[in-house]
Amino acid sequence: MLSPLLDDLARALATMPGIGRKTAQRLAIHLISQRPDAARGLVATLGTALDRIGHCQCCRNLTEEKLCGICRDTRRDDSVLCVVESPMDVVALEASGGFRGRYFVLFGRLSPIDGIGPDQLHFGQLESLVGEGVVREVILATNLTVEGEATAHYIAERLRTNEVKISRIAQGVPTGGELEYVDGQTLGLAIRGRAHY
Amino acid sequence: MLSPLLDDLARALATMPGIGRKTAQRLAIHLISQRPDAARGLVATLGTALDRIGHCQCCRNLTEEKLCGICRDTRRDDSVLCVVESPMDVVALEASGGFRGRYFVLFGRLSPIDGIGPDQLHFGQLESLVGEGVVREVILATNLTVEGEATAHYIAERLRTNEVKISRIAQGVPTGGELEYVDGQTLGLAIRGRAHY
Repeated sequence: MLSPLLDDLARALATMPGIGRKTAQRLAIHLISQRPDAARGLVATLGTALDRIGHCQCCRNLTEEKLCGICRDTRRDDSVLCVVESPMDVVALEASGGFRGRYFVLFGRLSPIDGIGPDQLHFGQLESLVGEGVVREVILATNLTVEGEATAHYIAERLRTNEVKISRIAQGVPTGGELEYVDGQTLGLAIRGRAHY
Repeated sequence: MLSPLLDDLARALATMPGIGRKTAQRLAIHLISQRPDAARGLVATLGTALDRIGHCQCCRNLTEEKLCGICRDTRRDDSVLCVVESPMDVVALEASGGFRGRYFVLFGRLSPIDGIGPDQLHFGQLESLVGEGVVREVILATNLTVEGEATAHYIAERLRTNEVKISRIAQGVPTGGELEYVDGQTLGLAIRGRAHY
């Protein structure tokens, strides 16, 4: 029993991932009745973002400039390129502080069933970037899922002709992990990939 | 490491209840990179909704008309008025199919600490409505929380001068509830409020 227009708004909100029908109804009511000021701000910001944000010409991450902040940063190490599936992975890796090289963002993973192949992930652009000769190592940091693994393997094959080292992020027991609760495959990989003191 | 504009968008999205910082970042990336068409639809729909949706002149629910769909519906029972805290409560009660009267939506509950008193909840309009003489019973269906109970008591006191029956929705064990897991206060109320076969 929401009004037709409020119902339209709830449906528009429900197109976002993780926002179900009920949550969308609640959000619609909240935006209109509790925070119309914030809702107007959202309309303006989302409109501007849609008009101005595009892909970085170098790494394909989202940016309103030609090059993103990381690609513009001259203090980063040009010789190491980290390939990730999504901009959120860049956020996570940057927050870890463990990487000072550059990125290439695929915006997805190989998934033939969804029609996502090498072209959709702009592998050509990645090859050109690596082919320029500045990159010495490509770290494949796609997710440790079946599709992420397949994507990593495929990229490794395609880049093998170049004279670059190709690596994959380490698999093992996460920090704070208790062995008893870790799956067998991960434990097996943790043993095989053991580091010597 | 989101771009400044994408960061603004994430912050605007995070003003919505239940949307944390991480979720907002994910939603911002999704809206811009995966579903720009849906995002443009959201901008348009939210803009229109903000311009056109207001309060029903009779029950204060949200509507783009002068009167909401329920207040316009001549088949509803004018003599029973159900007072609820939020439009979502109307949705829930309508879905239950257990009520065919009319509503009054408070848009909140008494909460002096947040500066929400009788004026903010438009008790004056509720009194006028009841004072017209058509309503025979007011069902207080505010939440069964401390603040919801206080609000119900306060309304009951204020409407006592009118010649209307005032009732409160029943408390007890919910359908499917197992007595073992129901709190003591609820069980006590379920015993006291028992219905005779």
